[in-house]
Amino acid sequence: MKHTITFVPDNVTVEVDDNTSLFKAVKAAGLYVLSSCGGKGNCGKCKVIIKQGSVESGKSRSFLSVEEAERGYVLACLSRVKGNLLVEIPQESRMQAKHKIATGAKTDELLQLMEAAGGCLESRISRVYLELNPPTIDDNIADYERLRRCLDKKGFDASLLHMNYLVLKKLSHVLREGNWNVTVSVFKVSAVLEVLDIYPGNATRTRYGAAIDIGTTTVVVYLVDMSNGHIIGTASTYNSQVKCGDDVITRIVYATERNGLKELQDLAVGNINTLLAELAEKNSVAPGMIDYIVVAGNTTMAHLFYGIDPQHIREEPYIPTATFFPLIRGKNVGFKIDPHAILYSMPNVASYVGGDITAGVLVSQLHKQDAVSLFIDIGTNGEIVLGNKEWLVTAACSAGPAFEGSGIKFGMRAMEGAIEEIEINPKTHEVNYRVIGDVKPIGLCGSGMIDALAEMYLSGVIDQKGKIREELGSKRVRRGESGLEFVLAWRVESAINKEIVISEVDLDNLIRAKAAIYAGFATLLSQMGMGFGDIDKMYIAGGFGRYIDVERAITIGMLPDLPVEKFQFLGNTSIMGAYYALLCDRLRREAEEIARKMTYIELSVSRNFMDEYLSALFLPHTDLNAFPTVKKQLEERKAR
Amino acid sequence: MKHTITFVPDNVTVEVDDNTSLFKAVKAAGLYVLSSCGGKGNCGKCKVIIKQGSVESGKSRSFLSVEEAERGYVLACLSRVKGNLLVEIPQESRMQAKHKIATGAKTDELLQLMEAAGGCLESRISRVYLELNPPTIDDNIADYERLRRCLDKKGFDASLLHMNYLVLKKLSHVLREGNWNVTVSVFKVSAVLEVLDIYPGNATRTRYGAAIDIGTTTVVVYLVDMSNGHIIGTASTYNSQVKCGDDVITRIVYATERNGLKELQDLAVGNINTLLAELAEKNSVAPGMIDYIVVAGNTTMAHLFYGIDPQHIREEPYIPTATFFPLIRGKNVGFKIDPHAILYSMPNVASYVGGDITAGVLVSQLHKQDAVSLFIDIGTNGEIVLGNKEWLVTAACSAGPAFEGSGIKFGMRAMEGAIEEIEINPKTHEVNYRVIGDVKPIGLCGSGMIDALAEMYLSGVIDQKGKIREELGSKRVRRGESGLEFVLAWRVESAINKEIVISEVDLDNLIRAKAAIYAGFATLLSQMGMGFGDIDKMYIAGGFGRYIDVERAITIGMLPDLPVEKFQFLGNTSIMGAYYALLCDRLRREAEEIARKMTYIELSVSRNFMDEYLSALFLPHTDLNAFPTVKKQLEERKAR
Repeated sequence: MKHTITFVPDNVTVEVDDNTSLFKAVKAAGLYVLSSCGGKGNCGKCKVIIKQGSVESGKSRSFLSVEEAERGYVLACLSRVKGNLLVEIPQESRMQAKHKIATGAKTDELLQLMEAAGGCLESRISRVYLELNPPTIDDNIADYERLRRCLDKKGFDASLLHMNYLVLKKLSHVLREGNWNVTVSVFKVSAVLEVLDIYPGNATRTRYGAAIDIGTTTVVVYLVDMSNGHIIGTASTYNSQVKCGDDVITRIVYATERNGLKELQDLAVGNINTLLAELAEKNSVAPGMIDYIVVAGNTTMAHLFYGIDPQHIREEPYIPTATFFPLIRGKNVGFKIDPHAILYSMPNVASYVGGDITAGVLVSQLHKQDAVSLFIDIGTNGEIVLGNKEWLVTAACSAGPAFEGSGIKFGMRAMEGAIEEIEINPKTHEVNYRVIGDVKPIGLCGSGMIDALAEMYLSGVIDQKGKIREELGSKRVRRGESGLEFVLAWRVESAINKEIVISEVDLDNLIRAKAAIYAGFATLLSQMGMGFGDIDKMYIAGGFGRYIDVERAITIGMLPDLPVEKFQFLGNTSIMGAYYALLCDRLRREAEEIARKMTYIELSVSRNFMDEYLSALFLPHTDLNAFPTVKKQLEERKAR
Repeated sequence: MKHTITFVPDNVTVEVDDNTSLFKAVKAAGLYVLSSCGGKGNCGKCKVIIKQGSVESGKSRSFLSVEEAERGYVLACLSRVKGNLLVEIPQESRMQAKHKIATGAKTDELLQLMEAAGGCLESRISRVYLELNPPTIDDNIADYERLRRCLDKKGFDASLLHMNYLVLKKLSHVLREGNWNVTVSVFKVSAVLEVLDIYPGNATRTRYGAAIDIGTTTVVVYLVDMSNGHIIGTASTYNSQVKCGDDVITRIVYATERNGLKELQDLAVGNINTLLAELAEKNSVAPGMIDYIVVAGNTTMAHLFYGIDPQHIREEPYIPTATFFPLIRGKNVGFKIDPHAILYSMPNVASYVGGDITAGVLVSQLHKQDAVSLFIDIGTNGEIVLGNKEWLVTAACSAGPAFEGSGIKFGMRAMEGAIEEIEINPKTHEVNYRVIGDVKPIGLCGSGMIDALAEMYLSGVIDQKGKIREELGSKRVRRGESGLEFVLAWRVESAINKEIVISEVDLDNLIRAKAAIYAGFATLLSQMGMGFGDIDKMYIAGGFGRYIDVERAITIGMLPDLPVEKFQFLGNTSIMGAYYALLCDRLRREAEEIARKMTYIELSVSRNFMDEYLSALFLPHTDLNAFPTVKKQLEERKAR
């Protein structure tokens, strides 16, 4: 039996089988609904409103308020279609890509940074213009041999020449079309010189490449003119895999289910295909002109992108299939723009420290310094690197995606409608906030959460354990459906016709996340017999890292209490490192050296880490003396 | 408008558009009809009989006798369908594959020959059994890195390891399926070590390879057990491309027409797929176990097999796209049995001297001898090599396919029904002949033609120019539709209910062919300042070469008048050389050295060749003193 479902406000209608989950119906309609758990009923994000008809709904735990239930809210993943429906996907359940993802692409700045890191325009693929002698009856060697001879004369060692089958097929035509003047793309691996493509005439100036950051949350693409290193276009989007789960673990589980791996691969590659096609069209880059692509992502993203089963990544002893991926052709993963482009993945280190981190270290250049630095990419995984030119250790502290909105009732990403700054009056406990886009708020993003935590703590709304002080008597403190909660924005202020609150459950999740990060730092340092005092520089990477307020992050004990001048924001080092490796083969090899040099510490089995984590489950920390500036702040506030 | 055509005796019916050529209709029905010219109305081979209905026929030159025309014979390629038809494809117009093609495969003999040539079982692909340490939390490198480490320990330099995408995809599963004991196929090109495939457990003994001879006329396949070099099966068939034309020039023309290239490729690859599938099934070789394939063929066959446009091969200055073909995967040409098998083509020398000749020289080992040898592959092309360990020169004398039956009214290949031996009584001019299969004759094959020419000359039926002596008054001499002809078999003796004759036109074609071969020898020798007296050995290769009667061939002046002991028959050196290269990488490299060392002489623009050719258009030659044994024979016959 089939049922018809119409989704509003999109006005898209689909027909599905009886008993289909509404979550799948949304997908079938080509629409998106938020989901952190991939449709398992564990996150409560996929709220939709049944406007006409009815569904059979499973238990939705405490995700829906009584009021929501009365208004027809259900969780799409727990609802089964039993008849024709009219369903609304409310604004709060949608992916909102209106707020531009920071791509951080400033060619001049990036080129300068790359040069400062010892890089230059020296890609591993080069275009060579050749003027061949036309054949005669006395000089009648084959076309391929003629090309080899000319390359030899140009100084290339063509004794081991290889040519792709499809290039060989067109060789004779292109040579004659160009009247024996042609341009070849050549690529050298060891002693083998491969001709990747051939063009009539002089085509040395029309070479393009792409640097791609495949984040768990976002995908960013730079289209680069390889002749001068200029970024001629940037584009970004949310990683469509998000609908299969927010974090890497959920996606690995999703991948092991029926056809899930292929689906996840297609989603990420689909994002890239769309972005690249847009960029190429906008910048009049002809198909076939993009011949080299460097991607950076965490190890799971790399596996999914290559379509390689990631299941052993999440099972002890946590083994990825590959950390150094072989070069492959674009078509192998489903690239449409240029199926023959060479695809390189930034080298990964271990299951939970990926190519994005190698790229980050490359950009930070901490591996060349005498002094010891800490590096952190604050994302879902919270990867940390500690080291200098002598040694590098690394770990992932599994902070989880709380600061990206997952597991936080009103959590959301840094986009329009997100509260990004909060101040709480320590006397009245009144709240001031700033919303991205200066609109009515929908929820709060990472920096808003850090602010909320810091301000609630400093103003005494919560205690050192993150418990709300009910005795405060504030009208903003109330008992909600999941325990005590604090109202950040009243219903009238919000864009979603309900209060935006932060609950004790939310606070607990945030404290766990920040504790994991801090414990990661502390564990790596103690592993090396060091303390925070030995740190010369603290590099913060990640899109998130652009907006973080260091002082607030120190207040909640997420970052160590170091002098502010020691912190340096690097931005999206994943895409930056991919850009370096794209343009400069020396830096690409340097990234491989970095990856080889890094010693990975598995924190999930570390007793030390567990101890440090438990000590960090306080605000800012069990040992307040480790946070002298916070101690001082608290004393100052009390004194007021 | 559509018409229905039924072919008998096959009883196959097709529906074709109005005005379709009957030649195409035969193809559309999946049937074969002989054709040397590929359906251009130039060879007269595609005779069919209209039993019911009528066709619109173009001029068929003198290909059909009055009697044939009366009996409903038409040329399929010149007939257009205008209504429903009942068409008979007579026996004489069919490809007859009953007579087994000689594959010449005797493992022991071949292995001994290969060893005598300095070869051994040392393929460029090897299977390596690895026992890996299972991962632990303290030894948690990626699967791919673990494999690399183990290969390194085994003595392979895996610093530049490459793995095919599809192998990488299954890596984690195979490692665990084999409980960390696996077998890898590895392939080394320069410093790059490529893992071609991986198998659970020990699979070192189940490796197979194939040596393939792609002849213009026949395709021969050896399936080889790579662990011991044994030929576990051989198979052969006629090259289905024959229906698109007998010789390479006709096929090149066919290839340049709409989709012709793809069609020709598919025909040859289809033959190989069929043969390999049969052999694999018969010998229980599982798919995926054939990982290395070496093909040998002339340069045009190689181009067609790779699907590469051969058009410039036939246009001055005669340039092939490639002589050394890059390694490709089976799937690139449409191999079904093992799409990932590595495909190697024996190196070619020039447009008209191909990998079959390089293979032939490799087998002859003339390139290692002090004394000077001549090598000839008597096929359609008549490729010749002259040289020793110091130097090698080569040429193709474009003998044409006359000795394979093309352009000869009753010419046919060496199969059942072909007259293969002829004797003519010098007094009575009565004819004795022997037919392959001891059946009634259909026509005559190469050795029969040589005999006919030699016997007609020695018995005085024809003069030195090949003209029939009408004044002889023999009842076998008569004036036919294309001039004077000599009856070899009377109507009652033949299987086709008509006389089998050899006409002056046929004789002329045969003399041209033999003259081209002899002129080729003479030109190469004079190029090197040598004469026939300097030749120590004369190697004769080709399936044809197995049946040739040297003395008769000397009589007609096709072969030089050397002592019989200097001649050595080598058989199908094309497949033998491919077999050597398959098993022994050293011999494969030796073949490349041979190809590089050979200096190609383009005879078609050589004035010297033209002179030699004109002098050779006599029986046996203008200069009878160059053929002392023939001179003696003539004198003896006269004296009788």
